[in-house]
Amino acid sequence: MEERYLMNAWYMAAWQEEVGEEALLARTLLEQPWLLYRTAQGDYAMIHDRCPHRFAPLSRGKRIGDVIACGYHGLRFDRTGKCVHNPFSDRISPKAVVKSLPVVARHGILWFWPGDPEKADPASIPDFTILDDPAPMVRTASLMNAHYELLTDNLLDLSHIEFVHEHSFQSGGALLQGQHKGYIDNEGVVWSCWTVEDTTPPRFAAAQLAGQRVDRWTTMRWNAPSVLYLEVGATPHGVPREESPVRPLRNPHIITPSTHASCYYFYNCIPGAESEAFARRIFEEEDRPMLEAVQQRMGDQEFWSQQPLILNVDAGAIHARQQLIRLKKAEAGEGAREAPAAQ
Amino acid sequence: MEERYLMNAWYMAAWQEEVGEEALLARTLLEQPWLLYRTAQGDYAMIHDRCPHRFAPLSRGKRIGDVIACGYHGLRFDRTGKCVHNPFSDRISPKAVVKSLPVVARHGILWFWPGDPEKADPASIPDFTILDDPAPMVRTASLMNAHYELLTDNLLDLSHIEFVHEHSFQSGGALLQGQHKGYIDNEGVVWSCWTVEDTTPPRFAAAQLAGQRVDRWTTMRWNAPSVLYLEVGATPHGVPREESPVRPLRNPHIITPSTHASCYYFYNCIPGAESEAFARRIFEEEDRPMLEAVQQRMGDQEFWSQQPLILNVDAGAIHARQQLIRLKKAEAGEGAREAPAAQ
Amino acid sequence: MEERYLMNAWYMAAWQEEVGEEALLARTLLEQPWLLYRTAQGDYAMIHDRCPHRFAPLSRGKRIGDVIACGYHGLRFDRTGKCVHNPFSDRISPKAVVKSLPVVARHGILWFWPGDPEKADPASIPDFTILDDPAPMVRTASLMNAHYELLTDNLLDLSHIEFVHEHSFQSGGALLQGQHKGYIDNEGVVWSCWTVEDTTPPRFAAAQLAGQRVDRWTTMRWNAPSVLYLEVGATPHGVPREESPVRPLRNPHIITPSTHASCYYFYNCIPGAESEAFARRIFEEEDRPMLEAVQQRMGDQEFWSQQPLILNVDAGAIHARQQLIRLKKAEAGEGAREAPAAQ
Repeated sequence: MEERYLMNAWYMAAWQEEVGEEALLARTLLEQPWLLYRTAQGDYAMIHDRCPHRFAPLSRGKRIGDVIACGYHGLRFDRTGKCVHNPFSDRISPKAVVKSLPVVARHGILWFWPGDPEKADPASIPDFTILDDPAPMVRTASLMNAHYELLTDNLLDLSHIEFVHEHSFQSGGALLQGQHKGYIDNEGVVWSCWTVEDTTPPRFAAAQLAGQRVDRWTTMRWNAPSVLYLEVGATPHGVPREESPVRPLRNPHIITPSTHASCYYFYNCIPGAESEAFARRIFEEEDRPMLEAVQQRMGDQEFWSQQPLILNVDAGAIHARQQLIRLKKAEAGEGAREAPAAQ
Repeated sequence: MEERYLMNAWYMAAWQEEVGEEALLARTLLEQPWLLYRTAQGDYAMIHDRCPHRFAPLSRGKRIGDVIACGYHGLRFDRTGKCVHNPFSDRISPKAVVKSLPVVARHGILWFWPGDPEKADPASIPDFTILDDPAPMVRTASLMNAHYELLTDNLLDLSHIEFVHEHSFQSGGALLQGQHKGYIDNEGVVWSCWTVEDTTPPRFAAAQLAGQRVDRWTTMRWNAPSVLYLEVGATPHGVPREESPVRPLRNPHIITPSTHASCYYFYNCIPGAESEAFARRIFEEEDRPMLEAVQQRMGDQEFWSQQPLILNVDAGAIHARQQLIRLKKAEAGEGAREAPAAQ
Repeated sequence: MEERYLMNAWYMAAWQEEVGEEALLARTLLEQPWLLYRTAQGDYAMIHDRCPHRFAPLSRGKRIGDVIACGYHGLRFDRTGKCVHNPFSDRISPKAVVKSLPVVARHGILWFWPGDPEKADPASIPDFTILDDPAPMVRTASLMNAHYELLTDNLLDLSHIEFVHEHSFQSGGALLQGQHKGYIDNEGVVWSCWTVEDTTPPRFAAAQLAGQRVDRWTTMRWNAPSVLYLEVGATPHGVPREESPVRPLRNPHIITPSTHASCYYFYNCIPGAESEAFARRIFEEEDRPMLEAVQQRMGDQEFWSQQPLILNVDAGAIHARQQLIRLKKAEAGEGAREAPAAQ
């Protein structure tokens, strides 16, 4: 099955901390092998991880300052992908070049733009200022054997917490009570929101709101193609959210396709044995086997061709899937418009 | 290679004892994932093991009485495959249904009918009353990485005992002597029969027939699609089989396709360390590697396209292969006749 | 990807010593399974490793003198592939035959000819009289998960020694200095030659040429389809090669396709812990991972379709690739000419 990806969009390549000073990080993203490294100036390079000569992975080579020397025959490439040294000749063919992509480090995340670099505007990177919090965090890049949109579905329909994570969260049906609303806003951002009013405090606010009736909310935000952000909060009943004495929990859940049947799931948690074990349990022992089992059951078949049953609670997930289809169609259309007109 | 199966036929899904009171047995049969379980009333349900919502295996869910709750988002399905509970709404779409198949428990075997349920007549289940013997039996369901018809071939040509099982049975060529006859009867049942007259007793009757000349027989019966039954007997020379003082050995050898290159082989043996080790040796250490090696040599190629050499001793195997082709053609023809006529 | 091989050519099947008196050597070569064995007379047989009856590997059978008995149903085949015994009948169908190939043992190598046996002239086997040296040698047959032409490329461009084997050989750029010349001669033999004049002695001649200025050469010879021979020598500066007091190092590097993405690499080294560890390091720990990584990066794509960058130093490799294309085209043309003319 050939997969078409949205090309003019920001995707997460890695956590910034994964690409240390000396690192050559090799990662398959959107079906292609890429090499990420940090330059002496502290910014980041992302070049195709395949030498144009005999196709060796450049990540098997070595760094000479900001230049990568292929480990097979020694051709050297700079951060723009241009060959800058040929051990066998003073002449360097203009064809001796590998693709490079724009990379932007922001909020501890390395974002890349696989499409037209002219259109790569960092202003359109989704807001994750929450991540600028200096408190230490454990950041994970987990390769899941499932299509990236299955992870989007999973996150935009958090009701699965009551089933997949039933014993871990012991939510006791909280996400099935109250109101759920999934919608797309004028910016093309999808929201999936659960609210329960006049109820008991959630566990994370149990101490601060002890004995009070509270209003609770769980909000998942989706930006194309598969960049999600979660906020979970509680406030004394009737008190506006922004006036709550309790600081909401806020977490990134960012997904990047690796192949058509696998993706990277980037998530974080607070440090500590208990917290890390809990994250491992939730994401790796509960979500992962379910998502991978769904992928297996789907096999090579396309999602819509399977005529999935649509539930009310799917509103967010379906909005996101449809928005992605619209954006890909628009992109294909642009491509057609920009192509030279046939005489 | 796309495989076409005979649909209007009884196939073995499992030994009845594999599906205990609490069990959710997941098994891929005829390329599809199925879930088998036993109801409170003691009969059996077989439903498609894929939720119609987000394609989670229902076997990852849990039982609530005779109802299966999906482990992903909690939809519940009854034994007919109908959705009977939606946690998110009082409305249940009529499309919220998974396929269910007729299952019949008989002779300790669970038989299923993948085709038109209207045609599923339990009277056509091949006779295995032999299995109603209350003596304890060890029953095995072995997944073999070989096309199911290769196992049919193997069983309808028992001469392989003289080669594959040469050291285990030490038959010493008994199956190569005497007479072999392979034929198809008026009911479409295939028989492969070996008889040797006026010879020495076989090992299993050595004590009872000591010192006598005997007539021996080995009879394999095949019912479509791949249901086999073996009888091995001996009687004093000239004495009719039914008057023999020695009770014949009688065993089921039932094959069900899993995928186009794998199948379940259901067999049994009497309990006991020696008997079980012998069965393991015969089936798992001798038949299995040979059958899997043949599958590997065939790769994705269809049997007849390889222009196999046909030997006399193949008569039974070839009758069975041809009968299966006839039955599949007839089924395709029926389908055509039942389809609305083009104007 | 379907691969087309040059058929009228000698390929190496195995080292002669791999096929001992009792051996049944099974090896997949040019996509087909073959069985090699040695006859009582001391010559060699090579027959298709698949019984024409039910496709069992004949290598799972047993030898009865120079005849192979299938381990499944006992058909026996002689060294020409003809069935000479059918346990079930005195009649043997003329179709009961497996393909056999001409095999020639020369210089300790078993050569086979997969094409038209009429054209199999042992005089065209590339010269490896060097291997007739009675000194003991450790001979290796290593299965590499890479297309065979990637190994040809690797060997015809030894400049990779400066990069892949940088630390092992510590050649210090010797192959980048001096002259390199890659060309094809009138016989269609490709030569890749490195020469450095008036330099220091190489390690293998350090003792004999101590303190002298020397001329060094490294010559790789290629015969179609992928049979290579290496000579590394040194002589006092100005002294003709054949008058050098130092005997050159001479080694076979012979490649045979197994599948379209794997091949056998036949090489040797002198016995001894240090020498064998060095060979293992060079071939298995340095060449192998690089070659297999290149294969992975290429995936199922054909070499030229990837528009590889061509360097000067590639001259030998490219001559060999082009010569192989010419030979395959010529062979396809011959096939066309030999086919009966359309009316």
